[in-house]
Amino acid sequence: MKVNQIKDLVSKMTLDEKIGQVIQLATPFFKGASDEGQITGPMKEMHIPDNMLQHIGSVLGASGAKETRSIQERYLQDSRLRIPLLIMSDIIHGYKTIFPVPLAIGSSWDLELAEKSATIAAKEAAVSGVHVTFAPMVDLVRDPRWGRVMESTGEDSYLNSAFAKAQVRGFQGSDLKHDHESVASCVKHFAGYGAAEGGRDYNTVNMSERELRESYLPAFKAALEAGSKLVMTAFNTVDGIPASANKSLMRDLLREEWNFDGVVISDWGAVKELIPHGVAADEKEAAMKAITAGVDIEMMTGCYANHLQQLIETNEMDVELLNEAVIRILELKDELGLFDDPYRGADEKREAEVVMCSAHRKAARDIAAKSCVLLKNEQDVLPLATTQKMALIGPFANSNDILGPWSWLGDKNEAIPLDVGMRNQLPASQLYVANGCGVNNHCEQDLSKAIELAKQSDVVVLALGESSEMSGEAGSRTNIQLPQAQLHLVAAVAKLGKPTVAVLFNGRPLDLHGVVDQVDAVLEAWYPGTEGGTAIADILFGNVNPSGKLTMSFPYNVGQIPVYYNSYNTGRPQGTINAQERYVSQYLDCPNEALFPFGYGLSYTHFKYSDLELSSDLMTPDKPITVKVKVTNAGDVAGEEVIQLYIRDLVGEVVRPLKELKGFQKISLQPGEERVVMFTLTEEQLRYHHADLSYHSDEGRFDLCVGANSQDVMALSFNLHKTKGE
Amino acid sequence: MKVNQIKDLVSKMTLDEKIGQVIQLATPFFKGASDEGQITGPMKEMHIPDNMLQHIGSVLGASGAKETRSIQERYLQDSRLRIPLLIMSDIIHGYKTIFPVPLAIGSSWDLELAEKSATIAAKEAAVSGVHVTFAPMVDLVRDPRWGRVMESTGEDSYLNSAFAKAQVRGFQGSDLKHDHESVASCVKHFAGYGAAEGGRDYNTVNMSERELRESYLPAFKAALEAGSKLVMTAFNTVDGIPASANKSLMRDLLREEWNFDGVVISDWGAVKELIPHGVAADEKEAAMKAITAGVDIEMMTGCYANHLQQLIETNEMDVELLNEAVIRILELKDELGLFDDPYRGADEKREAEVVMCSAHRKAARDIAAKSCVLLKNEQDVLPLATTQKMALIGPFANSNDILGPWSWLGDKNEAIPLDVGMRNQLPASQLYVANGCGVNNHCEQDLSKAIELAKQSDVVVLALGESSEMSGEAGSRTNIQLPQAQLHLVAAVAKLGKPTVAVLFNGRPLDLHGVVDQVDAVLEAWYPGTEGGTAIADILFGNVNPSGKLTMSFPYNVGQIPVYYNSYNTGRPQGTINAQERYVSQYLDCPNEALFPFGYGLSYTHFKYSDLELSSDLMTPDKPITVKVKVTNAGDVAGEEVIQLYIRDLVGEVVRPLKELKGFQKISLQPGEERVVMFTLTEEQLRYHHADLSYHSDEGRFDLCVGANSQDVMALSFNLHKTKGE
Repeated sequence: MKVNQIKDLVSKMTLDEKIGQVIQLATPFFKGASDEGQITGPMKEMHIPDNMLQHIGSVLGASGAKETRSIQERYLQDSRLRIPLLIMSDIIHGYKTIFPVPLAIGSSWDLELAEKSATIAAKEAAVSGVHVTFAPMVDLVRDPRWGRVMESTGEDSYLNSAFAKAQVRGFQGSDLKHDHESVASCVKHFAGYGAAEGGRDYNTVNMSERELRESYLPAFKAALEAGSKLVMTAFNTVDGIPASANKSLMRDLLREEWNFDGVVISDWGAVKELIPHGVAADEKEAAMKAITAGVDIEMMTGCYANHLQQLIETNEMDVELLNEAVIRILELKDELGLFDDPYRGADEKREAEVVMCSAHRKAARDIAAKSCVLLKNEQDVLPLATTQKMALIGPFANSNDILGPWSWLGDKNEAIPLDVGMRNQLPASQLYVANGCGVNNHCEQDLSKAIELAKQSDVVVLALGESSEMSGEAGSRTNIQLPQAQLHLVAAVAKLGKPTVAVLFNGRPLDLHGVVDQVDAVLEAWYPGTEGGTAIADILFGNVNPSGKLTMSFPYNVGQIPVYYNSYNTGRPQGTINAQERYVSQYLDCPNEALFPFGYGLSYTHFKYSDLELSSDLMTPDKPITVKVKVTNAGDVAGEEVIQLYIRDLVGEVVRPLKELKGFQKISLQPGEERVVMFTLTEEQLRYHHADLSYHSDEGRFDLCVGANSQDVMALSFNLHKTKGE
Repeated sequence: MKVNQIKDLVSKMTLDEKIGQVIQLATPFFKGASDEGQITGPMKEMHIPDNMLQHIGSVLGASGAKETRSIQERYLQDSRLRIPLLIMSDIIHGYKTIFPVPLAIGSSWDLELAEKSATIAAKEAAVSGVHVTFAPMVDLVRDPRWGRVMESTGEDSYLNSAFAKAQVRGFQGSDLKHDHESVASCVKHFAGYGAAEGGRDYNTVNMSERELRESYLPAFKAALEAGSKLVMTAFNTVDGIPASANKSLMRDLLREEWNFDGVVISDWGAVKELIPHGVAADEKEAAMKAITAGVDIEMMTGCYANHLQQLIETNEMDVELLNEAVIRILELKDELGLFDDPYRGADEKREAEVVMCSAHRKAARDIAAKSCVLLKNEQDVLPLATTQKMALIGPFANSNDILGPWSWLGDKNEAIPLDVGMRNQLPASQLYVANGCGVNNHCEQDLSKAIELAKQSDVVVLALGESSEMSGEAGSRTNIQLPQAQLHLVAAVAKLGKPTVAVLFNGRPLDLHGVVDQVDAVLEAWYPGTEGGTAIADILFGNVNPSGKLTMSFPYNVGQIPVYYNSYNTGRPQGTINAQERYVSQYLDCPNEALFPFGYGLSYTHFKYSDLELSSDLMTPDKPITVKVKVTNAGDVAGEEVIQLYIRDLVGEVVRPLKELKGFQKISLQPGEERVVMFTLTEEQLRYHHADLSYHSDEGRFDLCVGANSQDVMALSFNLHKTKGE
């Protein structure tokens, strides 16, 4: 439809019909849903007026071609103007074929794979009748106490931006209107949610606007540049004003400055939460604040449903605010092709063919293997020779709790546990399996049995981690070590002196004391998804060479948080005067640096960096610099390496980070093979937000670093000169 | 002198003479100093030009009437215009008579005592020839990892403001010019230093300007309202710009908005630190940035000394910037009466009488006892009957490391350790003393001996804590428990099942797991100063009833940091829906609240609160509300109680804290005595900084709470109505 046709349509709508469009409710409110009418508890307390129900414009959490078609069909029967219902769901890291959690996918540094995972998720979702996914989550994260770090791609705004774009491309494809194997993406959570104080979910966020723009907003901007159709507001406050009532964030920045003309939706219940936040006295004020600030759709509370009519009729609110929101929502429905085909991709037959098909499972296996990060590998204990006798011990030895949080439709029964994955690649007689303990529970008998099996083996693989409830939304922890029962198991096994490998299943950077110091090798497998066990076996047995690199720093301990690679130097950096100096910025009992830094990850081979060269030591706005570095696979096996490019602006008007990622390339090299990797660095990449928030670069000297991780780099420097008038 | 006379004087000064005024160096640079000429290491690298030395306007760290007179005398001999030298020193919590650390004094909630401690410190310092003290430190603190929390009065801006004023009054008296038993105060560290990221000293600070104004600046404003003559810049960045180069902080806010016309001095070396911070390429740019931003005096680096002349001669810098600074410095010297008497209070004979006199020691004893906070007292194990046999065990049993950091001239040999303090109030035969372990070291033999003595005793007093090097400047810790050796000692003693009391010597809120759960009573004695042992004995034996209350929350564990009473409610507060709800703002493994909250502290008696009344449930700008509450001493002994008044603005344009302290009164009640305590609450006290930084109140409902601490309160509510045009 043309814009005018949509405006015409809106002009024909009654006030109730318009208000219906700006409300999103869960499936029980809809006729034809499998749980139709099961409105209990908080849903009952929403008091959605009966006359409003038939007008509700979007549904949350519907899935499956049969059900989505049934809901749409019944809905359109009651729709005077035959405006189709919009169906949105949380497809975060896979629909039914579950990929590793986003923090793991980030560790792949592989944008194509990330895009592919989103494409597959979209395909499965679309064929099941979903139109919009509440993804990607692009919140920058620096605090591993926060359970939702597993949903982010990490601590770097450049990398998050790249992954945001890749995911949006993957979900949306190139033609939402006609390609019905795609879904619209809703980038979230706008904004700053990752900076929840104390890592406690939903907690207060405070930072300067400059810091928000520098670190937390770029990935949102990137997602919108890639065409993300929707934006979801965050639960948190941003400088004292909840995101869902934050006019300067949504009107001034998102709409005015960024020209975003898509749909803004609140997070679940976030409009009514303006009351406990303390910026609205009641639902009516909450509705007024949210719509004024720019929330087009209220999700799962009744403020709009119960109060917009009165606000408009008493002229407290301009009906144009509502009209604008409705137009945006109808435009989205049109962009999805729903006016032409309200059922869009929903197709039971195709669904049975597509969802969890072998190609998708194969992709999940590839991506899971590429997401694993090898943190330690002393004496090359990995890969394991399949001729060895192995004891697989730990609560995750045979666990299918490996999909991770926010794998809504993921079926644990379809997940491949590690023991199964290993057995598929080993003679059964060579693998002993025991739990040794529960995730959180010590059991002396289990432990004895496990130790007995370990004694009979040549090598021990410890499968350790966090249950998925210990992570994800509302999964904040003040202690980020593995649970005591597992540390006890590690210590007991370590005493045997056998070669020991720890495989970790978890959603956050952990404090790995009691693990990394006790074992020979550590493989961070994250929550690897449906094909986790197979993918990890691929790595353990050397069929896949690990190539993942951390995108979020692993701290020494919880008391060191936040620790992130792109921090400031301070005025009293450690080690510059002399190592004995007390009066420098340091802890008495802990290093400043991460235990495992951003960008870190080992391989079964090793890569040599040499011959770092710049095309010039002088850059101008017209003359980018070309960076060359030679990378050699100096080991015996083929492998992939992520070559990372960092800069440091040595003197800024505002302090610049010690390092800033400005580029990376993932390459594959055969043993002995060498390759010259090239990067181009432009003046545009040196720009940053100054004290007055203006975005430009400063003349002067820059360090340029290239290396295998954020700490292990080669460095050169160059100067930026700008002609007058720049 | 009149302003014109000072301007005349400045007009007669050479450029070198002027530049000399804006530089502060340590004593070795001055003739007549006891360490004259001992210029080594970093001091040598300052490369202060020889021709500049005779003009240097102020000296850092001189003390003692003899030395200060000697330096001044030699200085004036070389001074063409006979401009006296300004002598500044760090007199933080006492000169030689050391009072408890400021965090302890804050716990007294006793502004008169705080003022008295400053008065005494000033008296001892002034008679020793000091003109300016680098105090009070008024940084708001929420992170116990930071070692310098011991220098602050805590986490509340209202309380910090009150203590800031009390200390400034105490240091400066009412007539600096003629009362030469006073010293000028220099409030520090401007601004935000208490928010160092990760609690790591000197680290980055980031927050919004609104938050800075709401929480971190009020105590500075209060100190200036009380007349503090100087302001010291902080080491940290404030939103990406180091404080010492932060024009908006110093020119726009401090000078323009607050009309401060006193002297701004950098912290030690902070001007040159603009280079490692990354906002200045070299010393010249650092000098230019600092003087432009408003740093009048550069402390202990050579940027001004080596570069101002050239900057002025090349017209890169307006000489007026220098002239203004010099005028302010000369005005300060005049305000101190130095032009009339350059030796001011410095008097060897008086010094011998005044410094560490018995009245001062008595005051130190009183203040130390009032600063102790009783955190636990099960079965009224305290006070101890002096008829009992006691084992005093722990590394602080006989330690004189109880003065705490920043007790520069404090002499540990003059400090009264706990064993001495107890012995003075007990028959010697009743007290067994053993260390049991070192502060950080386990020793099996020591432990055995201690356990043996404990077995022979009726009650055990454990004297535990942090050595002073574990606290204070650059004393940041990621682990805020007591060291393992001491926790081991506690566990070993606890096994005996004897009544056990822990006395803590430390500078920060600790994670008290392994202590508070193992013993019957816990007395937080902080670093109590010179008379610490005596004061603690006064409390242990019931001669003084403890009345201190925490001004900084004690967290459950380090992973819960920051935890402070005046946080926000969030949109999903814990416990409001139902206790089983996962999706609320909470940790999976820890409560949200502090273990011991702000305002908390026990007494040997107990106080009953009743009959809370408001004069009206309606407040207007013209009609304040009077709050009455009846407080009864319901126990058997006389005691002091701090009655605390909090408000909560339920609906704000910006989210308001769950509670805000708005008043307190400390009263003394005999057993059975009751008193009606009254507070007046005005509209002015309800004002806050809105999103546009305007400072005003919002109409609407407020909760008002009165109680014994920030969690244990009675509550009523009232409405604020404002007439039109307000």
